[in-house]
Amino acid sequence: MILMPVSALETPVVLIDLDIMLRNIARMQRHCDALGKAFRPHIKTHKIPEIAHMQLEAGAIGIACQKVSEAEVFADAGVEDIQIPYNIVGERKLDRLMGVNRVCRLTVSADDPVVIDGLESAAQRHKARLRVMVDLGTDIQRTGAPPERAVELARRIRGSEQLDFAGLLVYPSTVSNRPRIQAALTMLHEAGFVVESVSGGGIGGAAQAADVPEVTELRVGTYIFNDVSTLNAGLCRIEDCAMRVRMTVVSRPDADRVILDGGSKTIAADRANDGHGLIVEYPEARIYKLSEEHAHCDFSACAARPSVGDIVHVIPVHTCVVTNLHDRIYGVRGDNVEEIWEVAARGMVC
Amino acid sequence: MILMPVSALETPVVLIDLDIMLRNIARMQRHCDALGKAFRPHIKTHKIPEIAHMQLEAGAIGIACQKVSEAEVFADAGVEDIQIPYNIVGERKLDRLMGVNRVCRLTVSADDPVVIDGLESAAQRHKARLRVMVDLGTDIQRTGAPPERAVELARRIRGSEQLDFAGLLVYPSTVSNRPRIQAALTMLHEAGFVVESVSGGGIGGAAQAADVPEVTELRVGTYIFNDVSTLNAGLCRIEDCAMRVRMTVVSRPDADRVILDGGSKTIAADRANDGHGLIVEYPEARIYKLSEEHAHCDFSACAARPSVGDIVHVIPVHTCVVTNLHDRIYGVRGDNVEEIWEVAARGMVC
Repeated sequence: MILMPVSALETPVVLIDLDIMLRNIARMQRHCDALGKAFRPHIKTHKIPEIAHMQLEAGAIGIACQKVSEAEVFADAGVEDIQIPYNIVGERKLDRLMGVNRVCRLTVSADDPVVIDGLESAAQRHKARLRVMVDLGTDIQRTGAPPERAVELARRIRGSEQLDFAGLLVYPSTVSNRPRIQAALTMLHEAGFVVESVSGGGIGGAAQAADVPEVTELRVGTYIFNDVSTLNAGLCRIEDCAMRVRMTVVSRPDADRVILDGGSKTIAADRANDGHGLIVEYPEARIYKLSEEHAHCDFSACAARPSVGDIVHVIPVHTCVVTNLHDRIYGVRGDNVEEIWEVAARGMVC
Repeated sequence: MILMPVSALETPVVLIDLDIMLRNIARMQRHCDALGKAFRPHIKTHKIPEIAHMQLEAGAIGIACQKVSEAEVFADAGVEDIQIPYNIVGERKLDRLMGVNRVCRLTVSADDPVVIDGLESAAQRHKARLRVMVDLGTDIQRTGAPPERAVELARRIRGSEQLDFAGLLVYPSTVSNRPRIQAALTMLHEAGFVVESVSGGGIGGAAQAADVPEVTELRVGTYIFNDVSTLNAGLCRIEDCAMRVRMTVVSRPDADRVILDGGSKTIAADRANDGHGLIVEYPEARIYKLSEEHAHCDFSACAARPSVGDIVHVIPVHTCVVTNLHDRIYGVRGDNVEEIWEVAARGMVC
């Protein structure tokens, strides 16, 4: 349904091309289906329950989110299967976690005995069972235990009366991490574990998933909108980028310099090699610097220059942090706004 | 009034040390008073009307904010003198600007004839007068006209029946920009202008204000909380940093690596030379990388290491973008929460 023309929106504003987004949703689902892997979109990219329901209707088995507060928003919105691939620590947070666990099929992860003990205590307090995956460390060196410790953690989960061992968690599940996955699975099998799920993730992991057959499930977030980072990584084309931040030229202080009305509070400070985003109408331009509310652009390589008052559209470097800066974003087809979404889980960091 | 112990707050959470903040407010006001300059705090750092009123009670003559939507929030909260040092472009935005102009003493800036024409049309539509400063370009090369064009813009404002010439705007008003300011003032005086206000700004501009006597008013934001950027610039001491982001250690994957429960969605991706913030309890630690919801820390230089579940406090690299990520922040004294502030202008980018 057409709600209004895009031109009626004030800038800066985040637009989502609905056809591109729906194509991205369908394509990733087909990719996972073809590989025989379950697909679990990570909602960190959009934080919008309505969009999660589109992903579920397309065939996703559930969602992943990173924080309990995000899970609360999506459980309230009727999502029935939620994974939080995160060490949940702290008694109050664990109590809230158990609240989510009561209303949906919840799975969390752990990479440390202290985390498992906290989960067990919470499950005891709430007289409930809780599904726990073991977080396997990878080459990005974030969280995660090495294979031998992963088996110890799995034993600790199995030894608990309250916890269920729910498989292995890996991020990212790229080919570079396959030896770790294989080592952990071998040790788990030798220790008598049935590993029902190996949940992998990352847009790179999804692209390489055919070569990591051990992975049974994929968590991907950015694919739904794409951005300059996925573009630079060769994981999408410009025509697959659904997010465009609509901005106005507010200053033309000299021949080559163009200033737009959005900065790091609009498109976040993330930077790719060549700048802070791609200006669709002027691909040769470079957003070389961001103030909080200004984008500083170098147009010296462009044949044409915009004037004060002109509108441009920017594909940001990292979509996930952009959505998180805005109270609402707009679904568009051509020149029309067809959806207005509240970013319901924006700012949910706890 | 003690509302609750700090330990009752879930992490990650943004704390403001009330005594440090009040000391910062008083010190900057004293600094401006001693120099005989008006002080106009920029609210971009806190975005909280209650705090703006503390700044006004301490002696500030009004506030500055960067966007019309921010001005709306502060005008609604009773702030009577608001400056928007920004080119306001676009008919709908200009109509909202005139709404703010109706309820307070508003001043905007312009660096282009097209911007002035838009302001004039809006003032005509609303049958109102509007105060306009001329934005003078500086060595940071953001917006702003060179001195000779500044005089042309001032003439255009003077020639309008609706607009009042309100002086010269400079950012930052550091010593390096003094020759530009002097050149513009000389040309303006020669053209018969009375320049009632030279509004300078920036925390560096404030520090150097004694050496730029032409500046009559200072706009500063970050001074109220301070951060690693102002610390690195030698503009404050650690004991002047009022903002601490309280976080929990959620993973200790190896001997030197510590993972905290906040990333670029909690403390923003800004980076100083040495990392993404200063961990107060472990000043030798380095936050070398941020995921969206994890801080990756290298503790190899530290004698002691925290355990999973331990609490640490991080002074962020750039406070202004941190506040903008949170729905509320907490004013604390020692171990007690005494204020809960809604970040009323969070996300106000339009």
